[in-house]
Amino acid sequence: MTIFSMLYLPELREMLAESDSDGLREFCTALHPARTAEFMEGLTAAEAWQVLQYADPDTREEIFSYFEPDKQLEILQTQDRTEMAELVAELASDDRVDLLHEADDGLVAELLPLLPAEDRRDILRLKSYPEGVAGAVMTSDIAKLDEELQVREALNELTRQAEELETIYYLYVVDESDHLRGVVSTRQLLSAISRPETRLRELMESDLAVVNVMDDQEEVARKVAKFDLLAIPVVDDEFRLLGIITHDDVIDVMREEATEDAHLIAGVQPLDESYLKTPLLTLSRKRGMWLTILFITALFTAFALQHYEEDTQKFAWLVMFIPLVISAGGNTGTQSATLVITALARGDVKLNDWARVIRRELVMGLLLGGFLAMIGFAAAMVLNRRLISATVVASTLVLVVLAGTLIGSMLPLVFRRLGLDPALMSNPFVTGIIDIMGIVIYMNVAMALIVLTGEAAAVDAMNAD
Amino acid sequence: MTIFSMLYLPELREMLAESDSDGLREFCTALHPARTAEFMEGLTAAEAWQVLQYADPDTREEIFSYFEPDKQLEILQTQDRTEMAELVAELASDDRVDLLHEADDGLVAELLPLLPAEDRRDILRLKSYPEGVAGAVMTSDIAKLDEELQVREALNELTRQAEELETIYYLYVVDESDHLRGVVSTRQLLSAISRPETRLRELMESDLAVVNVMDDQEEVARKVAKFDLLAIPVVDDEFRLLGIITHDDVIDVMREEATEDAHLIAGVQPLDESYLKTPLLTLSRKRGMWLTILFITALFTAFALQHYEEDTQKFAWLVMFIPLVISAGGNTGTQSATLVITALARGDVKLNDWARVIRRELVMGLLLGGFLAMIGFAAAMVLNRRLISATVVASTLVLVVLAGTLIGSMLPLVFRRLGLDPALMSNPFVTGIIDIMGIVIYMNVAMALIVLTGEAAAVDAMNAD
Repeated sequence: MTIFSMLYLPELREMLAESDSDGLREFCTALHPARTAEFMEGLTAAEAWQVLQYADPDTREEIFSYFEPDKQLEILQTQDRTEMAELVAELASDDRVDLLHEADDGLVAELLPLLPAEDRRDILRLKSYPEGVAGAVMTSDIAKLDEELQVREALNELTRQAEELETIYYLYVVDESDHLRGVVSTRQLLSAISRPETRLRELMESDLAVVNVMDDQEEVARKVAKFDLLAIPVVDDEFRLLGIITHDDVIDVMREEATEDAHLIAGVQPLDESYLKTPLLTLSRKRGMWLTILFITALFTAFALQHYEEDTQKFAWLVMFIPLVISAGGNTGTQSATLVITALARGDVKLNDWARVIRRELVMGLLLGGFLAMIGFAAAMVLNRRLISATVVASTLVLVVLAGTLIGSMLPLVFRRLGLDPALMSNPFVTGIIDIMGIVIYMNVAMALIVLTGEAAAVDAMNAD
Repeated sequence: MTIFSMLYLPELREMLAESDSDGLREFCTALHPARTAEFMEGLTAAEAWQVLQYADPDTREEIFSYFEPDKQLEILQTQDRTEMAELVAELASDDRVDLLHEADDGLVAELLPLLPAEDRRDILRLKSYPEGVAGAVMTSDIAKLDEELQVREALNELTRQAEELETIYYLYVVDESDHLRGVVSTRQLLSAISRPETRLRELMESDLAVVNVMDDQEEVARKVAKFDLLAIPVVDDEFRLLGIITHDDVIDVMREEATEDAHLIAGVQPLDESYLKTPLLTLSRKRGMWLTILFITALFTAFALQHYEEDTQKFAWLVMFIPLVISAGGNTGTQSATLVITALARGDVKLNDWARVIRRELVMGLLLGGFLAMIGFAAAMVLNRRLISATVVASTLVLVVLAGTLIGSMLPLVFRRLGLDPALMSNPFVTGIIDIMGIVIYMNVAMALIVLTGEAAAVDAMNAD
């Protein structure tokens, strides 16, 4: 709630108390509905509904559609059933399905019989699509026009429907059995106004981007972005027009997907509700699952270190640098994996670019590893003051960072090749694999250099004293 | 390149060789320009430009605008200067600024004098805005109408301009000095067709969402998404209308921002070009910077472990579990940080929700920590077969995971409070802090339990033998 809308709240309540109909009607129409809704954030569900009584049905529905989902649900569940049925009938077809999806089944069962038969059928059809597919996002309020219509008739039809439709900027042209034949934009229609007899058939664009009703919503967003569309038609397997998905729904889908990806990369199963509203047990399940997988992967580091216990006992300084070399490899691996994952998602890298990716990451690993090795060498000299430890740390860093770049960049490509989502799988696995490899590389480099420099003999001699 | 467009390539080349003008004209107009551009992906710049000669100027410009940026640039740099000036004059004002931004300064200097004075001024003005602000994304091709115009005149004006404008779905109403007064949608205009004398002043929406020309592009995307707009007007400090940003540009901005955020979270400075095109030295600088910061943070773990060297020498089994406990804390911290960062970005969590967040993460830390402690206990019993090590590992896990949830959730809120970008700062710091805390907690818990159980005395006695 903005400070401004909080300041306005007492005034709004006063108008309600005094039933100031002029003031309230003015309030409902003066601003963009999104902003009116914002000003009403502090009101209770009952108060908000009372205010909306002063708006005409269209404006009422618009303001209502900008309320937070929680408030919408509360109004729906607490206010008069008949009024609610009227409101639901007015809502855009995709919005009302979302709303009824959240409501109790009992309430839905009470409301449905109060709706006009056509709306009822529409709701039941849209509700039947699983979450995340085109059918669940689309709206069925569309301007469908017959291909034989003339420009003049089409404009009249459009003018008649302009108030009711969610978008009037594309007119979809269908044949007598609702098969999608083409699209005419309002722009084209207006440009053809001087030739009013032209038939839509002659004007329409017949090569058009469509999505299937069962396509994933991510695919929908990709296509709309690629073709710069205001809306994309949704068809069934027989190419019958079922609905459209508009640009604002695409933006919502993109925001949702971006959040989901961020959560997956951090090892959290995507949430159905917002962070604060997700029940703690659900949240702990969604986090615990990935934490357990990562924990079990990390257990292998304990096995690896147990294997080298004798060495770490003999050369105590080895222990000090374990977290340092592991984390350098993990960080580099995460960088490479994320770069390749995002490049794959944007289409900048294809599967058959793997050789180029390897070459680049090889150079990158040597450059970055070399640089960190210099800092590591200096740090080890300061900490341990012995050439052997500084040499071990520096050599290990080059190899571990190189392993990080190579594994980090290849794993997403492997996952993509296997048909798995690279975003979902890569980061936890990259870190897990690099942690273990880091320990193995570190201990082997250390023992090799120690033997080579005669350090081992020296320590043995010392212990024998 | 899709397989389909590769298959079509020989046919296209044959048509070019035979100068088959009917075929090529058909090719240029039959499909959506985006798809035509896709079919031409395999052609060289010279061939592509040759094909475009068969399209009328409008279609040529449209197909060209769907080419990959690289191919656009190559055509611009290799083809005839006069033809290129004509093409640039046709392009949408935001697209051509992007294109000229990539081109050599020498080429731009040659092209500019060939352009009409108005286009030249427009380009120079748009080029002057820094990357990432509204001014750099906006287009200046807008329908500006005087507030005194009548519906009939407005429709005529619209029909006249329909072919040239980037979007005709909003008409911006301005006063005589270009100050933005309101907006009329084509839909409203069509609905008012029966009252042709109505003035735009009476029809227009005067409460409208705008962005300032220097606003960040992320803010633009947020507003367009919030108000479900097709386009948002861009104004200067005096509220003069400078341009608009359309829904397709907003989708591009959102995709760009999502990639940038993913890179930042993985510790890579955002790239200006795609992964494969970024020069290796630039990439190593953008990665090396963060790797160095993270490496220096990780150095503190070495200092911490040096401090406990005597203890890890005496109790060798302690070493084995160091990476395990650190990684459990780091993973939990990353989860909490990402959840809070995304919730902050979406507005689901506000700064003053901090107490609720702490309470939730406290419970979450105990639940998750308790669960991992059970697995850890079992694993330690298998690995080390001693009650003391299993108890130390389990107790440490509870505390480290708790530290992870608390630090991970609070740090983004602290960064937001200080006015820093939580996405940018949190993850590296969370991991860095938790790594060190993990070691400190682990060693202190271990030594406390060892002393408590008399384990220390037993080991001392053994060594004294």
